[in-house]
Amino acid sequence: MRKPVDIPALAASLKAGERRALARAITLVESGRADHRADALALLDALGNDRQALRIGLSGTPGVGKSTFIEAFGLFLVEKGLKVAVLAVDPSSARSGGSILGDKTRMEHLSRHPQAFIRPSPSQAQMGGVARRTREAIALCEAAGYDVVLIETVGVGQSETMVAEMCDLFTLLLAPAGGDELQGVKRGIMEIADIILVNKADGDLKSQATRTCADYAGALRLLRKRPQDPESFPKAMTVSAYEGRGLPEAWDEMTALADWRKDHGHFAGRRAEQARYWFHEEVRLQLLERLQRDPVLAATLEAEETKLINGESTPTVAAANVLASFAGGTR
Amino acid sequence: MRKPVDIPALAASLKAGERRALARAITLVESGRADHRADALALLDALGNDRQALRIGLSGTPGVGKSTFIEAFGLFLVEKGLKVAVLAVDPSSARSGGSILGDKTRMEHLSRHPQAFIRPSPSQAQMGGVARRTREAIALCEAAGYDVVLIETVGVGQSETMVAEMCDLFTLLLAPAGGDELQGVKRGIMEIADIILVNKADGDLKSQATRTCADYAGALRLLRKRPQDPESFPKAMTVSAYEGRGLPEAWDEMTALADWRKDHGHFAGRRAEQARYWFHEEVRLQLLERLQRDPVLAATLEAEETKLINGESTPTVAAANVLASFAGGTR
Repeated sequence: MRKPVDIPALAASLKAGERRALARAITLVESGRADHRADALALLDALGNDRQALRIGLSGTPGVGKSTFIEAFGLFLVEKGLKVAVLAVDPSSARSGGSILGDKTRMEHLSRHPQAFIRPSPSQAQMGGVARRTREAIALCEAAGYDVVLIETVGVGQSETMVAEMCDLFTLLLAPAGGDELQGVKRGIMEIADIILVNKADGDLKSQATRTCADYAGALRLLRKRPQDPESFPKAMTVSAYEGRGLPEAWDEMTALADWRKDHGHFAGRRAEQARYWFHEEVRLQLLERLQRDPVLAATLEAEETKLINGESTPTVAAANVLASFAGGTR
Repeated sequence: MRKPVDIPALAASLKAGERRALARAITLVESGRADHRADALALLDALGNDRQALRIGLSGTPGVGKSTFIEAFGLFLVEKGLKVAVLAVDPSSARSGGSILGDKTRMEHLSRHPQAFIRPSPSQAQMGGVARRTREAIALCEAAGYDVVLIETVGVGQSETMVAEMCDLFTLLLAPAGGDELQGVKRGIMEIADIILVNKADGDLKSQATRTCADYAGALRLLRKRPQDPESFPKAMTVSAYEGRGLPEAWDEMTALADWRKDHGHFAGRRAEQARYWFHEEVRLQLLERLQRDPVLAATLEAEETKLINGESTPTVAAANVLASFAGGTR
C-alpha cells in the first residue's frame, strides 16, 4: 500500500533544514502504527543528537495572550537571525481530538517566516504518547538546525510538569489581575517556573501588571532556592506582547539563565537527568505496549485494574498478578 | 535456614491488633529478599483492605518541631480514643543508610502508649522500594485497626510528592519566620499542602507565627482552586505543639476536610486514583526488577543508560534497544 520511507534521504533533507522534511518526520513520530514506529526509531537513530537548541517551555491559560506573545517573541528572535520552532502540547487531545495552535493565522507573520517552523499539536494522540511525540519532535527540530524550540502548553493537568521535563527553562505567562481577583496559577507551576512574564503591561492594564508582577515576585521569594538558579532567579517581569515591550529584556534573562546554568554544569546535568528520566519512562511505556498488544495480558491488566478501583485488591498484588501471567507466557 | 512464615497466623495476629505482629509484617515488606517478597505478597493478599484509616501526610524541614508536634498531636488523638500509627519516609536512607524517627525517645510518651505504633524509616531501603514499603506499611496499619496513620517525611527531594500520592490529606509544618528571613518552602509543596501549620506560636515567637501564617494564607490565595477543596481550603493555621494549643482546631479542620471530600466523592475518588497510579508504578517496578534480575538484560540497561548520559543516544532508541534484547530472549 504505502511507499516505504527512505530513512537516509529523509534524514539528509531534514539535516539540510528542509521544512517539508521536518514536517514529514514529525508526522512519522506522531503515528501510532507499528511500521511507522520502526521508521521513526530508525530516523531518530540516523539523526543522532549532536545539535542543540535552547528548549523553552511556555505555559499560560487561555486569555493571557499566548499566541500574541509567541508571534511577537518569535519574530523578535528570527529578526536576530535565529531559527525558531514552535511546538504545542495539548494533553487533552488524547481525549477530545482538539488541537491547540491549530489555527496558524493566530501567528500569521511568524508562520510565514522562512526561519520559523510552527507545528500544531496533533489532533489525535495515542494515550501516553503525547510526551513521546513532543520529545521526539524536539529532537527533530534540533537536528534540523533550529536554535530555539518553544514548547507551548496550556495550564491544565500534568502538561506543565511533562514539558518541564523536556525543556531547558520554563516560562509562565500571566495576565494582570486586578484587586481581589485571583490569578489561579496552577499549583505546582511555582516549582517549575524559571521566569514569570506578566503580559499586557500596556494601556489601562499597565499599573495592574506591575502590581501583579510584584505579588508574584513576593510569592517566589517565599520559596526555597534551587541549586540550578543564580541569584535573583526565578524572577517575575512585565512584558507587552502587543507593543513588543520587554521582549529583549525577557530574552536577555533567558540567555543569562541558560549561560549561568551552562557555566555551572546545571544545563548539561539537567539534560542528562531528563534523558535518564525519559529512558525509564520509555522502557516502561514500551513494556506496557507489549503487555497491551497481547490480548490475554491486556485482559488481565484491565481485570486487575477494575478489581483495584473497586477496592478488591492492592496495587502490589494486582501488579504481581499481571506479571505472573506475563511470566507464564514466556520464561 | 529460616523458619517459613506462617502467613495465616501472622495475618490473624495482625488483624487482632497485636503490635508485634504488625512490626514483624512491616519488617517483611521492607525486605528485599525474593522469598520475603513472596511472603509479603501472600500476607497483603490475605489481609485484604476492608479497614480504612485516615492517612495524613506530614512534612517539615528539621527544626520546625516535627517530633514535638507528632508527640503532642498523637497524644491528643489517642486521648480521644483513636489508635494512631506513625510511619516515617526518609528518601535519603537508600543512599545514606540514615534513618529518621530512629530515636523513639523523641516521642517518649506516644511511643509507650498502647494505642500508638511508631515505626522508624528502615535504615536501608532498596532503590525504588521506599514508596512500596511505605504504601504496604500503611495497608498493614489499616488492617491492624489503626484509625489514623501519620506519614512523616522530610522536605527533600520528591518525598512529599510520593507521600501525597498515598495519603488522604497533606499537612505542612512550618516555623515562624522573622522579617526578611525566608522560609524556603520546597517548591511544589504548595501543590499538595491541604493545611499549613505554623508551629511555635508561643512565647516570643507568637506574633511572628501569626505574620508568617498570614503570608502563607496570602500565597495560597494566589493559587487556583482545586476541585477537591471546599471553600477556605487549603488553609494556614498557627499551632503550638509545645503548649498543645491549636491541636484540637487542626484536627477539626482535618476531619472537616476529610468529611467534605467523602461527601463529595473526592475521598474515594482520590484513593481509586492513587491505587491506579501505584498499580502502574508497581507493574513498571516489577518489570524493571525482572529486567535487572537477568544479567544480560541488566548489562544492556546499564550500557544504554551510559550511552544516553554521554549524549550518544536518545531515550526512545535506548529503550527500544533494551526491549529488543528482552524480546530476543522470550517470544
